[in-house]
Amino acid sequence: MSENLFIHPENYFTQNTPPENLSDIIRNTSDFIAENAKHGIPIVLVTSGGTTVPLENNTVRFVDNFSAGTRGAISAEFFLKSGYSVIFLHRKHSLQPFNRKYATPELGFLDFFTTNSSGSISVKEQYQKSMSSDISLFNNAILQKRLYMPSFISLSDYLFSLREITKLLGKLGSKACFYLAAAVSDFFIPNDQMSEHKIQSSEGELFLKMSQVPKFLKPLVKSWAPRSFVISFKLETDESLLEEKARKSLEKYGHQAVIANMLHTRKFVVWIILNDNIQKPEEIHLTQAQIDQSFEIEDLIIQRIVQLHNSFINSEKSRI
Amino acid sequence: MSENLFIHPENYFTQNTPPENLSDIIRNTSDFIAENAKHGIPIVLVTSGGTTVPLENNTVRFVDNFSAGTRGAISAEFFLKSGYSVIFLHRKHSLQPFNRKYATPELGFLDFFTTNSSGSISVKEQYQKSMSSDISLFNNAILQKRLYMPSFISLSDYLFSLREITKLLGKLGSKACFYLAAAVSDFFIPNDQMSEHKIQSSEGELFLKMSQVPKFLKPLVKSWAPRSFVISFKLETDESLLEEKARKSLEKYGHQAVIANMLHTRKFVVWIILNDNIQKPEEIHLTQAQIDQSFEIEDLIIQRIVQLHNSFINSEKSRI
Repeated sequence: MSENLFIHPENYFTQNTPPENLSDIIRNTSDFIAENAKHGIPIVLVTSGGTTVPLENNTVRFVDNFSAGTRGAISAEFFLKSGYSVIFLHRKHSLQPFNRKYATPELGFLDFFTTNSSGSISVKEQYQKSMSSDISLFNNAILQKRLYMPSFISLSDYLFSLREITKLLGKLGSKACFYLAAAVSDFFIPNDQMSEHKIQSSEGELFLKMSQVPKFLKPLVKSWAPRSFVISFKLETDESLLEEKARKSLEKYGHQAVIANMLHTRKFVVWIILNDNIQKPEEIHLTQAQIDQSFEIEDLIIQRIVQLHNSFINSEKSRI
Repeated sequence: MSENLFIHPENYFTQNTPPENLSDIIRNTSDFIAENAKHGIPIVLVTSGGTTVPLENNTVRFVDNFSAGTRGAISAEFFLKSGYSVIFLHRKHSLQPFNRKYATPELGFLDFFTTNSSGSISVKEQYQKSMSSDISLFNNAILQKRLYMPSFISLSDYLFSLREITKLLGKLGSKACFYLAAAVSDFFIPNDQMSEHKIQSSEGELFLKMSQVPKFLKPLVKSWAPRSFVISFKLETDESLLEEKARKSLEKYGHQAVIANMLHTRKFVVWIILNDNIQKPEEIHLTQAQIDQSFEIEDLIIQRIVQLHNSFINSEKSRI
């Protein structure tokens, strides 16, 4: 495999166009970090949802990654509950913390309501209690600047935003946590190889040559946030590859932990693999009783991540 | 171009698996048609949103078609307003009639509400009026069985559902209308050529060979609903191709009309191209004043479609 098939991460940024709202994201992120740092509140960046890669410059078709954003949205709620403030960098229209339960009803949003004869609106009885609690938690998190929710659609929007947010947050050193749960595309079509207009279908077959997306975890860990606590995710469908791929990733990028999970069991079991060659993967799973009570595995995952992050902060302190 | 590159529509159904809920969709559609036919209410099938095609059997990645479902959702509202009942076959989680305005707020669903100190929920003042009207319209349409909303995600789910619904609705003859606004994939990877597990990214480049999706408009017009009123859509990014492609489609499939539109101007201008070689395309566009007042072009489109459908019904009657 010749090396020139691979694109260098920094070259990616010179060959692609940043999202229009990047300067807003930078400004809002700076304000958010300053506000929370003032009160000594730890901050986590949670990335969530899938990135898209266009197949055409005038985009009609794109390759998407399967992800509703469930893991990221629930995790953000538990980070908030654990005292963290959260930058929630998410795929536009994917699930958001607290909103997630109301985002995708079978009969649509309006099914939560009734109106009386005078036209005044009320929430149906069965939803009142949970909705009332979620509205308070969500509105308070926004008002108190504990939650900031920038969004992306394409891979390129995601990567530009990730780089800028990470460089800002990385300045907090060991106190900053990165929880990279977004499902990021592995392949894309470089701008200069993309079809200008909608690909025509009269030719019978379509051949696509896609290039590998540069591995951005490398500059993230080495130079954007070199002293921070970084957790990546590994999702596979073939269990035999899971631990080996997680260990290789830790070896290659040098970050602190990988959360490994299988596509079909990811709501019930995950493994935390730490950056040492000693410990076996830590399994976190729900019991049948917990599953029956709709307990969410992210509750357990975040408890453990917070412990690990605290140990990391303390070990950094003792080193200084 | 050799003919064996193309898959026959009927073969597609033997080579792919129907969605699990297909028998529910068939039963619900039959009931819906019977109920509306009893009251002499005309029925339109509106298809809406994009279909996905998986790149792997254990799906992590898929090719998607750009479509939020805006055209379909708004059109369904205006069909209801014009006295039609609507089967709204839509991409799951794409925009739905009446719900669409509340589906994608920047700050999420819960931003529409406030709670007071006792925990009771109310809708923020600025949304009350429009939301109250939409809740009534939506709930009444569902309760009165004027609106049925089956959904799909993949191309294959869409095609199986489309075939069954069309065969049932086609029995109404000229009184049935088909408004095929969904953005259907043009290319897919046949089951037997698909990767079983998540495609690995260590190889540097990805080559995909995709086959052309069979043209289902052909059996739809020729055999599933041969006496009904069928409108298809053509979306392009290159205007020079638009009319020619619309005319070719009418020639090839023999349906009644194509609504042609350009990706970047589709909210302001469309052209209706009728199945004759005489008339120029009918342009329907919004004036600047209408755009300023957030008038929706679907209002004008559906008014014209209803006229055309009525003429079609009358010409069928006079022929008998």
